[in-house]
Amino acid sequence: MAANTRFAVGVHLLTSLAYMGGTMTSEELAGSVVTNAVVLRRILARLEKAGLVTGHPGRKGGFALARPVSAITLLDVHRAVGGNGLFAVHANREAKHCPVSACIKGVLTDVFAKAEGAAEGELRRVRLADVVARVPVPAGKKKQT
Amino acid sequence: MAANTRFAVGVHLLTSLAYMGGTMTSEELAGSVVTNAVVLRRILARLEKAGLVTGHPGRKGGFALARPVSAITLLDVHRAVGGNGLFAVHANREAKHCPVSACIKGVLTDVFAKAEGAAEGELRRVRLADVVARVPVPAGKKKQT
Repeated sequence: MAANTRFAVGVHLLTSLAYMGGTMTSEELAGSVVTNAVVLRRILARLEKAGLVTGHPGRKGGFALARPVSAITLLDVHRAVGGNGLFAVHANREAKHCPVSACIKGVLTDVFAKAEGAAEGELRRVRLADVVARVPVPAGKKKQT
Repeated sequence: MAANTRFAVGVHLLTSLAYMGGTMTSEELAGSVVTNAVVLRRILARLEKAGLVTGHPGRKGGFALARPVSAITLLDVHRAVGGNGLFAVHANREAKHCPVSACIKGVLTDVFAKAEGAAEGELRRVRLADVVARVPVPAGKKKQT
């Protein structure tokens, strides 16, 4: 699964946990994401490591949110599961006596950091609570806050 | 080569063309990027299709910038070679009767568009001229403008 798809699935998982408001097994979560539970457990392990979910092992175990939905931003999720940055400087070695080759990676590192920072700023502004608020609630069901 | 590395290599190629101020073959460009000329030709083909370079076929052919360095932004380069967006919504099918599954892709599409727009705004602000200006110029060599 590509790094950037993991991010979308991570948000989906946390939204499902928030919506259901309790503990869910990876099999139950797989019913919502419609993918293999093994794939999800890898993503859940990253979310747990980042302190966004708690895992309860065992047959009747499962996963639950570790924080209130207002205390999780999409940037938290991206950092937990999104991979190694949005842009990558090429790793090719530097050409001797070529001024462009000698400096281009430093220039790109600066530009990429600014662009990533701008994207991250937008992700930081969106809380899991904002995502959950957009899920329609059936009559009689109370939303998590 | 991953989509996001193509972007860095694309900027490197255009910077080399701007710095040298004329036509370069893919072999000459490969000397600066330190990679296979075949890989570069694929990227150059995308840059040509986007109207950023002109290609001159033949033994003595090569590539040259199609526009002044002040008329090329890094967003132009990213759009030409960077791939399919910084974030991807998962393509898994929708789970029946699951309100989260039914709406999460729409929510993520909105959030990702905002975050990508912010990153693209930063890339739009950087012109190829700004990158070239950071390459040290040996005494006696005149910079392109």
